[in-house]
Amino acid sequence: MPNASRTPADQSDLDPGIAARLKRDANGLFAAVVQQHDTGEVLMLAWMDDEALHRSLTTGRATYYSRSRQEYWVKGETSGNPQWVKSAALDCDGDAILLRVDQRGVACHTGTRTCWDSGDLQAVVVTPSAG
Amino acid sequence: MPNASRTPADQSDLDPGIAARLKRDANGLFAAVVQQHDTGEVLMLAWMDDEALHRSLTTGRATYYSRSRQEYWVKGETSGNPQWVKSAALDCDGDAILLRVDQRGVACHTGTRTCWDSGDLQAVVVTPSAG
Repeated sequence: MPNASRTPADQSDLDPGIAARLKRDANGLFAAVVQQHDTGEVLMLAWMDDEALHRSLTTGRATYYSRSRQEYWVKGETSGNPQWVKSAALDCDGDAILLRVDQRGVACHTGTRTCWDSGDLQAVVVTPSAG
Repeated sequence: MPNASRTPADQSDLDPGIAARLKRDANGLFAAVVQQHDTGEVLMLAWMDDEALHRSLTTGRATYYSRSRQEYWVKGETSGNPQWVKSAALDCDGDAILLRVDQRGVACHTGTRTCWDSGDLQAVVVTPSAG
């Protein structure tokens, strides 16, 4: 995990105005929901720290923090399926990013377009009465 | 947070087959990305434990676990803006739900349709060369 003994501002060149609005978890991370900009597909959920967000906002390439590998991860660098950033927004609570991207190829490491393509759960659907 | 001294299976009537696929954080929670089923809008990011997922899958109403209030939260119960569940899926890692809903009215407690409507961040957009 990112060095917890330093403040996020020390670790990163992220705009201080944005850094001040972020709420991070105990490991200095926050969630990023990644959406295909034109089709609206939700591709994946990933994690960022301040520096990953800074890189995503300034390089054009979606960049995350891998909790398992404990390192920065430029999406597509090894898979060949990059995500080009189209826009980004911070949510009302300051703890989740919505990153709209142009995903080339598949987003999921399992080879499917999104990380939810193989995981349907049975759900009761209720149609509320009009009114 | 949910009682950590009991297993999720003890706490919840969630289908054991689904419970076995879930990966929870240290507090027994996992993320739920909430999307409007027809327009594709990403409405919000919320948190669930096993029981919140069980209720979302079986009642027709999106139900979350509030980390701040430490209680279950039927979306719309106080705001009057319910989310009716249309479908649900578990991601490839087992740690994030995509919940597709029909959101009546606004999703955000600030009064906007989604939780990202007021939070645009400036991003560099790179157009990759063809090929």
